[in-house]
Amino acid sequence: MTAPHPAERGTAAPGLERLSLNQITTKHWSLPEAVRGCGQAGIPAIGLWRDKVAETGTARAARLVRDSGLTVSSLCRGGFLTAAGPEGRRAALDDNRRAVEEAAELGTDTLVLVVGGLPEGSRDLPGARARVADLLAELAPYAGQFGVRLAIEPLHPMFCADRAVVSTLGQALDLAAPHPAAQVGVVVDSYHVWWDPALPEQLARAGRDGRIAAYQVCDWTLPLPADVLLGRGHVGDGHIDFRSLTDQVTAAGYTGWIEVEIFNERIWATPGEQTLATVADRHRTHVATAPHR
Amino acid sequence: MTAPHPAERGTAAPGLERLSLNQITTKHWSLPEAVRGCGQAGIPAIGLWRDKVAETGTARAARLVRDSGLTVSSLCRGGFLTAAGPEGRRAALDDNRRAVEEAAELGTDTLVLVVGGLPEGSRDLPGARARVADLLAELAPYAGQFGVRLAIEPLHPMFCADRAVVSTLGQALDLAAPHPAAQVGVVVDSYHVWWDPALPEQLARAGRDGRIAAYQVCDWTLPLPADVLLGRGHVGDGHIDFRSLTDQVTAAGYTGWIEVEIFNERIWATPGEQTLATVADRHRTHVATAPHR
Repeated sequence: MTAPHPAERGTAAPGLERLSLNQITTKHWSLPEAVRGCGQAGIPAIGLWRDKVAETGTARAARLVRDSGLTVSSLCRGGFLTAAGPEGRRAALDDNRRAVEEAAELGTDTLVLVVGGLPEGSRDLPGARARVADLLAELAPYAGQFGVRLAIEPLHPMFCADRAVVSTLGQALDLAAPHPAAQVGVVVDSYHVWWDPALPEQLARAGRDGRIAAYQVCDWTLPLPADVLLGRGHVGDGHIDFRSLTDQVTAAGYTGWIEVEIFNERIWATPGEQTLATVADRHRTHVATAPHR
Repeated sequence: MTAPHPAERGTAAPGLERLSLNQITTKHWSLPEAVRGCGQAGIPAIGLWRDKVAETGTARAARLVRDSGLTVSSLCRGGFLTAAGPEGRRAALDDNRRAVEEAAELGTDTLVLVVGGLPEGSRDLPGARARVADLLAELAPYAGQFGVRLAIEPLHPMFCADRAVVSTLGQALDLAAPHPAAQVGVVVDSYHVWWDPALPEQLARAGRDGRIAAYQVCDWTLPLPADVLLGRGHVGDGHIDFRSLTDQVTAAGYTGWIEVEIFNERIWATPGEQTLATVADRHRTHVATAPHR
């Protein structure tokens, strides 16, 4: 079930060998449209979302992607592990087991986890974080059976209350540490980690421990919109130094896919072909010339 | 110039012995109005803002506060140290030296520093952070001459690009470390630090090193407003566990003022007396019963 390494594929346009389109970036495209768009733009990989996969049907989605020659770099997303009580726990386990199975059927080895925020009315942040650790212990071996790695995504601290109580790369690595690296890794998403003064040392640690499962990029632009979930920009439009960040991720030993994942209403309203052209252009300008190893 | 310790003052209403009103919370009150409001509400201390002090005149403001029996818990704010180039550097030093002098004249030993974001168009976060360290080295001895302590405030990471490249308590403590604790301390502001998984260990470290210069409180409420600067809520209205946080700050040895600092258009539009009544009520309910040492 291991996804082919970028170097093993031959469908990429020059300079796009490591580029993957996370399909949320073209939110208004169906899965077949996104697959076709990637093929036409010379983008060799795609990160899929479960809702889009469900629209198409998992088996058909898997066949479509396979026939297109694209690699599935990741499946977004499992997680939401913070519900309190036995019923919430069971529901989260069931849903994440299904997500693992879907990832395997789609031919990707990477299931991104957004761990969830505080339950309604709760102020117990340590409790919510403990539940994440607890459920990971149940899910990691299950994922391992399917050749899938759970990729814990630390989200920007502004999402701590409502989306993810895992807020830093160091914290994600602490959660991953008890588990085999083949079962649990971390996502490095530029938008969520760029501000972190501990980032250089935590990226080096992630590399030493073999934990970097995915590298996602988009830019931090200002002003933030009314819904801060939707404030991300194209690479190069904001405040993140992608040259430095990509060099650090590369120096940590990561040579896998670089997935562009952008939540932005304005970009979503742009025709998909145009968005992919911008994505490809920015990748070549700001990311792709980093040293490959 | 050392501000009296809460226990040394006798103007507080029961349960409000450690409460201070940061005057941004009643933004539409002038300094004389805020001083009068605190006296009437039994709030024994006030955190002043330089723009409000300037409106009134520093000497008159100092006299007004002194005559009222209030303690000035802090002056907000110096900082904005990240400008590049010799001219920006000199302007920042000049302004911060004036802020130190104003703090001394107002009778407070605490000058809050918001260190500034990235200069326009810059992506050089390490460079901006290095300039903060550089200017602190110039300013700390100057502040020491006036009996004033520079209190570095880590701001929530969502303000990293535009307001403060110091984003965590640990980072603020690293910046303070080269300087005497009497010259450089840190601000613990609930809104900015509550999410940090490293908070317990960094609070303990701050206590051991004698660095906690101020404890500010307001709550993290959702949804965030269009301008995220203005999204802060009254203590008790959001997701922060003030019992746990205050216990940790107290266990770290901090027994000073607890300053309520709220940026919120809706609260600003509320009559000041009503805001102060809510502030006092929430302080008694969520904060004041923490063990005092």
